[in-house]
Amino acid sequence: MSTLVSEIRPGAYFDSVVLMQLQRGLVALPGIEDAGVVMATPVNIELLAASGLQPEVKAGPDDLLLVVKAESEAAGRAALAQVDELLARRRSSARAAFFPKSLDAAAKTLPEARWVLISVPGRFAAGVAREALHLGKNVFVYSDNVPIEDEIDLKKQSGAKGLLVMGPDCGTAIIGGQGFGFANRVRPGSIGLVGASGTGLQAVTSAIHALGGGVSQAIGTGSRDLKPEVGAVSARQALDVLDRDPQTKVVVLISKPSEAAAAAPVLSAARRVAKPVVVDLIGLAPGAAKLDNLHFASSLEEAAHLAVRIESGSASPASSAPGMAPNGKYLRGLFSGGTLAYEAVLSLQAVLRPLYTNVPIADEQRLQDPLKSRGHTILDLGADVFTVGRLHPMIDNDLRLRRLRQEAADPETAVILLDVVLGEGAHPDPAAEVAPAVSESRQRKGLEVVVVVIGTDADPQDLEAQIERFRAAGARVHTGLSAAVDEAVRLLGHTSEAPGAPLALADFRSPAAINVGLESFYESLVAQGATAIHVDWRPPAGGDERLMGILARMKSKGQAP
Amino acid sequence: MSTLVSEIRPGAYFDSVVLMQLQRGLVALPGIEDAGVVMATPVNIELLAASGLQPEVKAGPDDLLLVVKAESEAAGRAALAQVDELLARRRSSARAAFFPKSLDAAAKTLPEARWVLISVPGRFAAGVAREALHLGKNVFVYSDNVPIEDEIDLKKQSGAKGLLVMGPDCGTAIIGGQGFGFANRVRPGSIGLVGASGTGLQAVTSAIHALGGGVSQAIGTGSRDLKPEVGAVSARQALDVLDRDPQTKVVVLISKPSEAAAAAPVLSAARRVAKPVVVDLIGLAPGAAKLDNLHFASSLEEAAHLAVRIESGSASPASSAPGMAPNGKYLRGLFSGGTLAYEAVLSLQAVLRPLYTNVPIADEQRLQDPLKSRGHTILDLGADVFTVGRLHPMIDNDLRLRRLRQEAADPETAVILLDVVLGEGAHPDPAAEVAPAVSESRQRKGLEVVVVVIGTDADPQDLEAQIERFRAAGARVHTGLSAAVDEAVRLLGHTSEAPGAPLALADFRSPAAINVGLESFYESLVAQGATAIHVDWRPPAGGDERLMGILARMKSKGQAP
Repeated sequence: MSTLVSEIRPGAYFDSVVLMQLQRGLVALPGIEDAGVVMATPVNIELLAASGLQPEVKAGPDDLLLVVKAESEAAGRAALAQVDELLARRRSSARAAFFPKSLDAAAKTLPEARWVLISVPGRFAAGVAREALHLGKNVFVYSDNVPIEDEIDLKKQSGAKGLLVMGPDCGTAIIGGQGFGFANRVRPGSIGLVGASGTGLQAVTSAIHALGGGVSQAIGTGSRDLKPEVGAVSARQALDVLDRDPQTKVVVLISKPSEAAAAAPVLSAARRVAKPVVVDLIGLAPGAAKLDNLHFASSLEEAAHLAVRIESGSASPASSAPGMAPNGKYLRGLFSGGTLAYEAVLSLQAVLRPLYTNVPIADEQRLQDPLKSRGHTILDLGADVFTVGRLHPMIDNDLRLRRLRQEAADPETAVILLDVVLGEGAHPDPAAEVAPAVSESRQRKGLEVVVVVIGTDADPQDLEAQIERFRAAGARVHTGLSAAVDEAVRLLGHTSEAPGAPLALADFRSPAAINVGLESFYESLVAQGATAIHVDWRPPAGGDERLMGILARMKSKGQAP
Repeated sequence: MSTLVSEIRPGAYFDSVVLMQLQRGLVALPGIEDAGVVMATPVNIELLAASGLQPEVKAGPDDLLLVVKAESEAAGRAALAQVDELLARRRSSARAAFFPKSLDAAAKTLPEARWVLISVPGRFAAGVAREALHLGKNVFVYSDNVPIEDEIDLKKQSGAKGLLVMGPDCGTAIIGGQGFGFANRVRPGSIGLVGASGTGLQAVTSAIHALGGGVSQAIGTGSRDLKPEVGAVSARQALDVLDRDPQTKVVVLISKPSEAAAAAPVLSAARRVAKPVVVDLIGLAPGAAKLDNLHFASSLEEAAHLAVRIESGSASPASSAPGMAPNGKYLRGLFSGGTLAYEAVLSLQAVLRPLYTNVPIADEQRLQDPLKSRGHTILDLGADVFTVGRLHPMIDNDLRLRRLRQEAADPETAVILLDVVLGEGAHPDPAAEVAPAVSESRQRKGLEVVVVVIGTDADPQDLEAQIERFRAAGARVHTGLSAAVDEAVRLLGHTSEAPGAPLALADFRSPAAINVGLESFYESLVAQGATAIHVDWRPPAGGDERLMGILARMKSKGQAP
């Protein structure tokens, strides 16, 4: 019958590789059936329990807990007695002696290194990243379990200095052809990626490679970069540098925004890019395949396909001509088709703000007074409130004609978007009534009118004649909603501002790096042929948080300008 | 200087066409600049105000309000004095005399009519629909402003009787080649549509026609059919009848669910269909292009393209073979890639319930205890809680191996889904450790394992060898997540039940119809060559709600079995 023997080492610091190797070393000893070596967090203790390894001892999350399931108490004790020897064996690794002991020292040894990779335990990561920024380096923070307050603070600094912080919790990057952290080996090419999702970037870069495409840069941002409190600092910097990078022809942007509103700043930045940008905001339905230079994908694999297709020129790249900068600022959409209005809102909410409508997707889009437009406005004129005692606007144009004149008279209106739905049951000749009003509104200098006509060549109204009449009235006419919405968006142009201090493009050509944390990441850099140096890092003050705080304060005072 | 002259007709009933014609008639009179003829709802009064037509009178929503803007008071009075004459002119329409005055009478005149089109004002529509159901007819309720309680009640009745209620607020349908309400003329064909969105159906049927495809049936459900309190009764009946219709080869389903949960019943029904179903749930991101027989589109135009492509055989139709019905019931996904886990949840939430995960999209998906799976479960084993003092599962397989054994031992597990991410920084040979555990778990009869390997042929682990080793262990291996998720879903099969009493397929071959409400819809039926009859409908009890209630109760008692 087997027995559990355990040991606690309070407040000890070991990196995860050491713990894994120690656990494996214990299992290999005679008389040992299973072993667990973990920091004693509640989840880790539950995981031990699930494997039948829960000892009856009290330990806290900063304690190292060692448990063995042994044939006998004696065998267990004998195994645990070898822990120090197993640890010592690890410590005496041949190379360790030659590694510098601090980031500072490493930076002096390899001054050309523009990048610092950080994979120390989460509670130490922000401190190392601050040191790296202070040394003027870009940082890649692999570590997770880093408080968001630290991320906000780090990105405030990096944004102001024109440095990049990838992460925390950034699993992957490919910079100047070298993979950082977890990274697939892909051929060099002209697709540049920005991703708030590590495996998202890995899946898309792998798929691009499989499809015959290549990657210029793959820049991670960390999974929380798009959170409003962080403000997409890294994603916006990354988009800007890829815009300036002559090797990048097509950009791919991947993220999981918590909601549409969180995506707005990064999509505004993406519209500033004078290149096609393939966007996969995982979980958000875009409602259109294309809006201006943005091409929307609804899965990682589709994002890869789209990027390769656009890059190889078989899909027409976005005409990223600047908007026509009409006199007004806003789009006004007057729809008779409720679903067309809704699909338009779905597309436009990605790129136009503020957007109001009587068919809101999010609460803040609700137009309080449907009789008065505000900002960008999309109206379903067939909504119940408009049809009490009144024919549907597909039959009776009166309401729409009055509203069209009202919008045209509003100096804030830049573009008017109309639908015209033909077919049985609808008005016998909508163009006869609506086209003259379009023509009249086009008298106002700079006002543009986009019309989408829904119908078939068999419809009683004569599709071609309707289209011709609207064209003659000066409207831009489409037969599909997405093309109409796309044109309306292009006519409006964009208003996003550049992010703060720009990143140095040269940093992305020289991926020489300093590695702090997992030695395997250093080995991987060397295996890829990169110039790299590893820091034999130990936590300051032996991991004692109080002492660390004092040291950090002393240091920052000493270094303040 | 112009002046406003107005008149109120309390509680008067006129249909909307009469009001429109009256308004146009008034504008055409001498000395009249503009006119408004509306039921005096608050919005309608505001609309009058926006046109400078707001009179200083008090009127309620059941009152008819007539306003003219005239050159002089006298001209205004003279115009209003002609209202009765204008109305009488309308009433004496030549045909009206020959129309039956009640639905009952019309049904006796045209007994073969299986369909009743209802476009009377909203507050009367449910009453007419109840009469139609009582007569054993399917109904198309164009009317909007119908209380949802009436819709729930009507669909309870129709569901039990094997009749269809399209609507309320159903703008369009094409039944046996005839358009009901607003409908585009499209060529007959083998694409059958179900839509909770009128203009959505119009846009997609028009696009199908433009692409050279054709339509078998287009069945509207009304925009609220998917609301949980209505329960998608009509959509489920419609999917069932299209499944049985030999002329329909491909089905298209369009709706705007308020959230993913609302889509579940109709997607379960769609999975029962033994034909490919193109799904456009406007506003919901599916996360995958295909799941079993469901093909997801993210816009109306894409839905049309997909349907035509599948129908013409250039896209492979879904292999709708029934699931393998393995011993267990549930899917268990064990991911090292957080974004892969999230994208899997995004896809699976459409078709698998209950679904739990530690990367939830909706709150109710949150797995309370990440160490214990419930129902269908998707786990991100790289989540922060699992990586305190432990290497990421891409480097260290220990945690995953233990969990894999735990899931395989659970008799509720039917399919296990794993990702394996290769590349720099990752474990040098994951298959060496994971494949034996896969092989071991496959010993349990009926348990299936699906593996998605993310990597490139340049990765240090040797992609092909990794795949081969997992295949040899009995896993079904894919290199893209969506194919892996698709296979997992197919292996699970489906559990949805058929809706209540089935609709009669024959009704969809004989679109003979009775029209109650807008005469223009009758005219359109006749123009299409349909057998149709119009009812010269007037509200019961002259529109007096109290009297109507008494009449309805008397009638229902008289007709009770």
